[in-house]
Amino acid sequence: MLRFTEMMNGAGLTVDVNSSIKYKTPFQEILLLETEAFGKMLVLDGAVQTTEKDEFIYHEMIVHVPLFTLGRDVEKVLVIGGGDGGTVREALKHNPSKVDMVEIDREVVELCKKEFPEIASGLDDERVSIFFEDGREFIKGKKGEYDAVIIDCSDPVGPSAVLFSEEFYKDVKNALKSDGVVVTQSESPFAQFDAFKVVISNLKKVFSVVRPYLAFIPTYPSGMWSFTFASDSKDPLSVSPQELAERLSSFEKNKGRLKYYNLEIHYGAFAIPNFVIDKLNK
Amino acid sequence: MLRFTEMMNGAGLTVDVNSSIKYKTPFQEILLLETEAFGKMLVLDGAVQTTEKDEFIYHEMIVHVPLFTLGRDVEKVLVIGGGDGGTVREALKHNPSKVDMVEIDREVVELCKKEFPEIASGLDDERVSIFFEDGREFIKGKKGEYDAVIIDCSDPVGPSAVLFSEEFYKDVKNALKSDGVVVTQSESPFAQFDAFKVVISNLKKVFSVVRPYLAFIPTYPSGMWSFTFASDSKDPLSVSPQELAERLSSFEKNKGRLKYYNLEIHYGAFAIPNFVIDKLNK
Repeated sequence: MLRFTEMMNGAGLTVDVNSSIKYKTPFQEILLLETEAFGKMLVLDGAVQTTEKDEFIYHEMIVHVPLFTLGRDVEKVLVIGGGDGGTVREALKHNPSKVDMVEIDREVVELCKKEFPEIASGLDDERVSIFFEDGREFIKGKKGEYDAVIIDCSDPVGPSAVLFSEEFYKDVKNALKSDGVVVTQSESPFAQFDAFKVVISNLKKVFSVVRPYLAFIPTYPSGMWSFTFASDSKDPLSVSPQELAERLSSFEKNKGRLKYYNLEIHYGAFAIPNFVIDKLNK
Repeated sequence: MLRFTEMMNGAGLTVDVNSSIKYKTPFQEILLLETEAFGKMLVLDGAVQTTEKDEFIYHEMIVHVPLFTLGRDVEKVLVIGGGDGGTVREALKHNPSKVDMVEIDREVVELCKKEFPEIASGLDDERVSIFFEDGREFIKGKKGEYDAVIIDCSDPVGPSAVLFSEEFYKDVKNALKSDGVVVTQSESPFAQFDAFKVVISNLKKVFSVVRPYLAFIPTYPSGMWSFTFASDSKDPLSVSPQELAERLSSFEKNKGRLKYYNLEIHYGAFAIPNFVIDKLNK
């Protein structure tokens, strides 16, 4: 059997592979693997992006923490990146009137619609508009338009690097309504600490509330993955458990039970180990 | 450069290796690796046990959650397994009068004293007695002797299998004082769900309070690792944050700040994702 390994600084994930197909787009190299352990796996420029078996963790955690924190009807959501569609699928569960998704690589979206129909299921929803553009350019000049901006980007190399900059976060803030919320995936505090720190320090230059949180993602480097929430008026830790329980209960009545996110996870994900806190404060 | 890979059901960790030495003991095969990413790494029968870089996570989480829950002076602690010494090192920070460690494989202990002196640092402490015996036999017939029993065993194959049984947990209960606490490592709910479930269901047959909790361990299968706390009178989630903050503050005055465990982690570690809860309840 073939094996695929993604190494980073001397360590990484190895998976047994039944078959693989390689594509080259103008932006990146796509590898589509059929794996023993995780079902189909999407790899971009050598980095695992999503798998059938554990994608729900990343997509639930990047969407539901900020949208349950928002605490009111969601009108308009912007997803930057997120070509596989999982983030749009989860965002639609909050009944927004409109979701804009800006993905630079059309071929990723086309491939995911074909190969990952369960993940991409929301992309053909009539409330969803997909813009095949550079997210950095798309957001410039937008004013007070979105309730939530979700930055579902790849590592800060290549086309995603600008999505970690202070200037970009300023444009995100302008694009948000005054009580809006933003979240970005923020790499692994264990395996990619420098990138994690850049996100937090740049967000702190722009937003008054900045809160990193963690989730177990078995197919990402080290398995310890982070997201960072930011806002000028909302705070995920200021939502009362009673209120969150009510929001969750009415959500579940319509959309069913989620697979990762729940009330305890909402708060527990913000527990950050001392070694991460201490390294951030250095 | 050489590489070492630990595969489990089609997925696993790969590390770049500078050098390796293999030993064969009467109980298992030991591999000692010098790795790029994690420093020295101890592998038993092909399974990564401990590494210089991330050992603090496992050892702090298996010790401090139960001992801060105990909430009183710790007199006597029993560690079953734990041949590398890291669990004993952390337990000694709670100033017990005595720590018994029962490890079946003398050669693991000898090797760790030589190769992992920072992990094994407590093993020569005068309060520590090491018994090179089968933990299952050692505990039989003990009555009300220990404040805490910490089961720091390897996977439930080979010599450790009996340490996951109801009969063993009954003997552990007998060996505990009436307000005593027990904790066991309980495998990965993501990668080894069946073993995780066996621990919880067997502990529930013996103890009235049984609470699994999670930690990020980058070198263990899937990175999502679990421990399970059990007791007949103590509950980690019933400790008030005020009380725990006081305990932690006086601990830190004497022993310094820990690297993983803190107040938020104490509670947050008990947040279990829905897919784990739902699979347990099936």
